[in-house]
Amino acid sequence: MADNVTNQPIAETRNTDPGHKLVLNEPLVLQSGVTLEPVTVAYQTYGSLNTERSNCILVCHALTGDQYVAGIHPSSGKPGWWNTLVGPGKAIDTELFFVVCANVLGGCMGSSGPKEINPTTNQPWGLDFPIITIRDMVQAQVKLIDHLGIDKVFCVVGGSMGAMQTLEWAHKYPDRIFSAVPIAGSYRHSAQNIAFHEVGRQAIMADPDWCHGNYLTEGKVPKRGLAVARMAAHITYLSETALQRKFGRRLQDRTSLTYGFDADFQVESYLRHQGYTFVDRFDANSYLYITRAMDYFDLAQENDGALAEAFKNTPVRYCLISFSSDWLFPTLESREIVRALNVVPANVSFVEIESDKGHDAFLLDESEFHQTLQGFISGAAESFGLSTEHGTNNES
Amino acid sequence: MADNVTNQPIAETRNTDPGHKLVLNEPLVLQSGVTLEPVTVAYQTYGSLNTERSNCILVCHALTGDQYVAGIHPSSGKPGWWNTLVGPGKAIDTELFFVVCANVLGGCMGSSGPKEINPTTNQPWGLDFPIITIRDMVQAQVKLIDHLGIDKVFCVVGGSMGAMQTLEWAHKYPDRIFSAVPIAGSYRHSAQNIAFHEVGRQAIMADPDWCHGNYLTEGKVPKRGLAVARMAAHITYLSETALQRKFGRRLQDRTSLTYGFDADFQVESYLRHQGYTFVDRFDANSYLYITRAMDYFDLAQENDGALAEAFKNTPVRYCLISFSSDWLFPTLESREIVRALNVVPANVSFVEIESDKGHDAFLLDESEFHQTLQGFISGAAESFGLSTEHGTNNES
Repeated sequence: MADNVTNQPIAETRNTDPGHKLVLNEPLVLQSGVTLEPVTVAYQTYGSLNTERSNCILVCHALTGDQYVAGIHPSSGKPGWWNTLVGPGKAIDTELFFVVCANVLGGCMGSSGPKEINPTTNQPWGLDFPIITIRDMVQAQVKLIDHLGIDKVFCVVGGSMGAMQTLEWAHKYPDRIFSAVPIAGSYRHSAQNIAFHEVGRQAIMADPDWCHGNYLTEGKVPKRGLAVARMAAHITYLSETALQRKFGRRLQDRTSLTYGFDADFQVESYLRHQGYTFVDRFDANSYLYITRAMDYFDLAQENDGALAEAFKNTPVRYCLISFSSDWLFPTLESREIVRALNVVPANVSFVEIESDKGHDAFLLDESEFHQTLQGFISGAAESFGLSTEHGTNNES
Repeated sequence: MADNVTNQPIAETRNTDPGHKLVLNEPLVLQSGVTLEPVTVAYQTYGSLNTERSNCILVCHALTGDQYVAGIHPSSGKPGWWNTLVGPGKAIDTELFFVVCANVLGGCMGSSGPKEINPTTNQPWGLDFPIITIRDMVQAQVKLIDHLGIDKVFCVVGGSMGAMQTLEWAHKYPDRIFSAVPIAGSYRHSAQNIAFHEVGRQAIMADPDWCHGNYLTEGKVPKRGLAVARMAAHITYLSETALQRKFGRRLQDRTSLTYGFDADFQVESYLRHQGYTFVDRFDANSYLYITRAMDYFDLAQENDGALAEAFKNTPVRYCLISFSSDWLFPTLESREIVRALNVVPANVSFVEIESDKGHDAFLLDESEFHQTLQGFISGAAESFGLSTEHGTNNES
């Protein structure tokens, strides 16, 4: 293992900045059959790998996430997307674990994706970039784990699309991981979720500045289309209750209706802000590719509708977590996975967290969620023979 | 009554085609304080007004509906939007009742709206058309009812935005109506619903062919923006269950994934179709104005948060109907109205119809819904002294 990739001393992978890049020294055959070359995997690590190389927690990010899980994001200057959860003494304790997160294939934070340069043309790939799937994303992560010299990942964890990757790891590489925590996810994208993604894609493609995918070459950015896509998606990340509590029908910086199309309501102003800040940090074509990867994900279909088959004889220890007000990936979908895992039978625990914050709860400081995750990791670590006392796994 | 409007013989109002137009002979002072002139109300009627002029059922249409409730729509050639419900022998029986439906102010089927000609400029109004509210829509309907020589409307009924108009009638003109049936509606637009509307508006405004609202003058149509708005909205009209049952993850005219951005899934193809057929029948600016009217609707706010105040001493007989899988206007919101009406107290009945078809159920052939409506109308008609035997109320 780790010999088919550019050699990089493990010592270099300890700190967060500047970002790490692994360039695979062989092409990747994608699920579509297309060969992608070269393949770059941009990633970050937090904490230290122990001498047994057994304390790795691989974090898989969601649709618009990236490898900057903790600490301060180098572009935005804001805390990483799971900074409340990952760090010294936190639920995913970087004093005990070596945390790795890679930007997904198709992404726009340094991994191979449509905004990177196509070596054949010396232009950005645009729509010439091949369609990637969740399986392809995981394939690339396996190469990274190989490169890091890790035989068995202690735990793979992720929310939303990260949960899909986690399930794919458990399905395809059950012997390479000890435990898996799919959070707020599903084994397949539902019709409603495909529909919302399609609206986002159509919004981007409707923007003339998208230039049929060639906006980078044309020196344009389909800001309006991408902003609309983000706005539509953002509503699905929140619950009705959360929106009502946060905004209700309160007006934005005014005491009465203006009888016009300005953002009279706070919720409108908030949405516009979400849309227009998103375009500064995300690539429109990446949005197309990654939403497509999620739509294509279906572990049951791959096994003629029998989800349990995807986990047959699995040695992996599972913990599924859902949120009661998540209507994008409702609890029901996690329960279906639990049911399939019980058929196998697998070692599985399941917790539905009571929260009115919707799908986004997995990104928020929800104490019951954090405690659940910490509890599972702690128990699994003991079973895996990892100490959970501070300092014992730490090289530094 | 009926003397301040262009006189039109009642006999003329019996049949459906060609459409009727009432031009008010005085301006309308809108809720915003702006005066609108001239005001045209395009409407259709079905059945016959009895000699006592007491058998009128006023139907209020939803966001993208129009006055063509029953029979064949003159533009689309398809049945009217409530054809399953309105007609001879149907739940709203045109052999017994005189059914009236007016295109709302701000609409695009003949009533005054942004696509009509602004007499000051001899150009389409565009964004110079004043913002209208649900109250303004109802004001215009009152003028129509006056014009038809009807003192008291037997029943006002409508779903979705039609329910808002129905509630507004009951609130503002309680002595002009005997009964009210708000279906799948609310007393105020929720934060989530405002958010979805805002996405639609932003999608339209993001389309360069919208031309800041002047597309008609510029000879363009913001088709892509309006289609995206419709697609996003359409998802909210269906339940997750309905989408899953109708489409699931089934592929469209292919046996395997194409690894591209074509409409691989039936649900994508369906959505695109919904979007791109909508632009042929609806005006983009009307979409902006009517969604805004819905957003502004809030009967509780008008009464310092006390919804019951809106219905104080109401003599109206109410029947509220909701659908169990409607997440756009969930049952909870109908229940809040029922609770307020019980405080008054008012004569109110409430039925939640078990259906997995989502908000759209109010437009579909749901037998329990139709029976409920027919039952209520029948009982109310008896109380109102209307015969419910065929032929007795029929002039023809």
